Amino acid sequence: MSVDRVRAHLEATYPAFLERLHAFLRLPSVSTDPAYARGMADARALLVERLTAAGFEHVRTIAAGGHPAVYADWLHAPGRPTLLVYGHYDVQPPDPLERWVSPPFEPTERDGRLHCRGASDDKGPLSLALEALGAFLAVEGAIPINVKLLIEGEEELGSATLEAICAAHRELLAADAVLSADGARWRADLATVNVGMRGNAGFELSVHTAGKDLHSGRYGGAVANALHVMAALVASLHHRDGKIAVAGFLDDVEAIDADTRAALAAIPFDADGFAAANGAVAAGEPGFGVLERLWLRPTIEVNGMWGGYTGPGSKTAIPCEAHAKLTMRLAPGQTPERAAAAVRRHLEAACPPGVTIAFAGERGGSSAYSVPPEHPLLTAVEHAVGRSAGRVPLRVRIGATLPLAVLAHRTLGLDTVMFSFSTADEDFHAPNEFIRLSALREGLSAWVDLLRAVGEQPVEAYARHRRAHDRTPPARAQ
Amino acid sequence: MSVDRVRAHLEATYPAFLERLHAFLRLPSVSTDPAYARGMADARALLVERLTAAGFEHVRTIAAGGHPAVYADWLHAPGRPTLLVYGHYDVQPPDPLERWVSPPFEPTERDGRLHCRGASDDKGPLSLALEALGAFLAVEGAIPINVKLLIEGEEELGSATLEAICAAHRELLAADAVLSADGARWRADLATVNVGMRGNAGFELSVHTAGKDLHSGRYGGAVANALHVMAALVASLHHRDGKIAVAGFLDDVEAIDADTRAALAAIPFDADGFAAANGAVAAGEPGFGVLERLWLRPTIEVNGMWGGYTGPGSKTAIPCEAHAKLTMRLAPGQTPERAAAAVRRHLEAACPPGVTIAFAGERGGSSAYSVPPEHPLLTAVEHAVGRSAGRVPLRVRIGATLPLAVLAHRTLGLDTVMFSFSTADEDFHAPNEFIRLSALREGLSAWVDLLRAVGEQPVEAYARHRRAHDRTPPARAQ
Repeated sequence: MSVDRVRAHLEATYPAFLERLHAFLRLPSVSTDPAYARGMADARALLVERLTAAGFEHVRTIAAGGHPAVYADWLHAPGRPTLLVYGHYDVQPPDPLERWVSPPFEPTERDGRLHCRGASDDKGPLSLALEALGAFLAVEGAIPINVKLLIEGEEELGSATLEAICAAHRELLAADAVLSADGARWRADLATVNVGMRGNAGFELSVHTAGKDLHSGRYGGAVANALHVMAALVASLHHRDGKIAVAGFLDDVEAIDADTRAALAAIPFDADGFAAANGAVAAGEPGFGVLERLWLRPTIEVNGMWGGYTGPGSKTAIPCEAHAKLTMRLAPGQTPERAAAAVRRHLEAACPPGVTIAFAGERGGSSAYSVPPEHPLLTAVEHAVGRSAGRVPLRVRIGATLPLAVLAHRTLGLDTVMFSFSTADEDFHAPNEFIRLSALREGLSAWVDLLRAVGEQPVEAYARHRRAHDRTPPARAQ
Repeated sequence: MSVDRVRAHLEATYPAFLERLHAFLRLPSVSTDPAYARGMADARALLVERLTAAGFEHVRTIAAGGHPAVYADWLHAPGRPTLLVYGHYDVQPPDPLERWVSPPFEPTERDGRLHCRGASDDKGPLSLALEALGAFLAVEGAIPINVKLLIEGEEELGSATLEAICAAHRELLAADAVLSADGARWRADLATVNVGMRGNAGFELSVHTAGKDLHSGRYGGAVANALHVMAALVASLHHRDGKIAVAGFLDDVEAIDADTRAALAAIPFDADGFAAANGAVAAGEPGFGVLERLWLRPTIEVNGMWGGYTGPGSKTAIPCEAHAKLTMRLAPGQTPERAAAAVRRHLEAACPPGVTIAFAGERGGSSAYSVPPEHPLLTAVEHAVGRSAGRVPLRVRIGATLPLAVLAHRTLGLDTVMFSFSTADEDFHAPNEFIRLSALREGLSAWVDLLRAVGEQPVEAYARHRRAHDRTPPARAQ
């Protein structure tokens, strides 16, 4: 199989690739708003048509009550590893529209960047995978490995039914590992591979101090104020120095060993300037470096809080209820159930006698996830990224959560490695989303390298890891 | 002058009085909503017409940029005291409409109660004054005292331009004291007179921790959260036991002397059951009784607080800004300026370095006000209330604020005594506002008694009090 010919084909057809990407980007496939149902259907139809034309087999949509995912496979590399390649065709809403320099669904090049909703998340990176795989099929009539494609339509909805889809199609989706075309690279100035992510959990909290708001003149001094109670509860979650004050919450967190600490310290990173560079006031747990706090330490954040009168002017009422939305980022070792339970216990214990406290809106959440450090797919990705970048990539983590990774492990028993060519600064949930045009060329080349490299790996290396995982929960794997 | 004939006239014309009251109540004079401008104008026209017909002179409207007040006088009792009788013709909005049993602007009697927006606050109590004064003029052709009427149209707007009106018409409004037909009686089961009220002050507070909301995955652990900062600031205002923790805030508060303490303790009042009886959780400053806390101790209340995402579901953003509305009730001895400054200083000092804190929405506020205990108008009111109730009324205070009292002292040098026949439980800022029909008869009789009693007082007794007040600020008068 000639990789050079594949590369030459990709070079020759690059303008046509850009046109195909533009056509994909023009479809407004916003999953969170039913008004975009047509854009969602069009995007699925485009994928089904292209995958069929490229030579993929068993092209179909699979659904579990939500937006369908698109499935396709090419399984004619006997004895070679099988990768489940993941991406998503849905995009964030384009609001606020008035802040877009060019129309959100009209691909527009400016200064070496391709601007469009979905360019970076995830239509651009996903298209690199499809283009590279299609080039192998076009030039060689074969791919170096077995490939199953799973392209979901609900990533921007928190992958609402992805777990149900995976659970209902375990045989169809069986593979040796998951390769995700989603999951942004950390920085544009550094070659990196992501080897883990934090987990998450969250719930809503309400307190009630009376049956109705009471006049502050007639009752003030004798009755509880729900906003005072809520403020005290929220304030009690952290010590003044920034350390989490919830009993038991930190007990499950894995200690950061000396090697990891040294590796993090060796990453070029302006820790002191990080917050300011993002226009923010620095804060966080004492005793840990910024990268440790971002990647390997948990957080509790109140994302929304409200109660009482919030309109113009003033209203002299003592509010009888207050609400807060709270989410956590979980470190390796924690589970969403135990972490959320510790916070609820803390809040219940801190709530003054007589005040009603209630919890709602709890979501399943995810544990943190770490790729096993010797995983063959990680090795292959490091090789491919290193080749396209011209240097050995650094292993980094992300502080956010890709539910896919935990979900794929839980339902399919598979590890996930991220292989995306978007970058975290590309405004992918904001106006003027873009992807660097240089990343598209870099990505096409890296995909070719990666497919060849995995094709040369013994399938047994993957099987060993899947067995090892049956014994160890993924959150503790690294 | 025959008080008996005046009383007989009021008895004979009681059905006509009720009809006049109904006509007044039917006019939707909501001052806070421009959609009710017609109702406001109609209410003013009705007052002007009636006062003129009753024999008042110099009937006119006076304005200072807001809704006009109605003025009228009758000044033909040489050598007798002159009272500035205060009331207001504006009412609260009727919302929520669906909770009214009968239409809000259709006077409806049920179970000895007259239901209508404004029945209790203040068209009913104001009409008692107009009716009693009119009866004297109709029967005797004279009132026992000199009377100036000032009926404002902005009480439900916080008397927005009343101070400007008073300041611009000092000569016109010159009198010996203010008698307010507004200011609810404390309880239906106890004969009381109000001898003081708390002051108030307030402002809005904002904190900013970043230029925009930041993703909790990518930044969580390294940047400040505006809601955490706000919660800590609000929580810092009080000690855990309920005592205000703002340095200097309590320094100006007058100590409660042993006599006052004993007098409050002697009032029949279920202190332990007060909060629960109002459906609320008890709270407040330790070391003080509930009535002391309600009437003679200050409060700081957050009336509204908001920030971050408050819609359905969750959003994993670290909010960059948070807001709160804060008001205080001030005790005798405090000034709004010094109290607000102490709270602002406390918040600024408690705000973490780098976080931007800003204040807005500050209003003038009022000091607490106390009627001088030997004031002749207070004596006369106690006499009249005692006669209609058949027992000596208790002196009580209110925890709320009637801006008129402080304002009349500041601009006109006058003390204010409240003489209203509404009761605090009459839902006057809520659906199904009502006034007890028994209070209307009681009030008419009491007004006759009061006017006679004041007519028998030497005008010098009033002048002495006005001189005394030139030396002592009103908040420290008792």
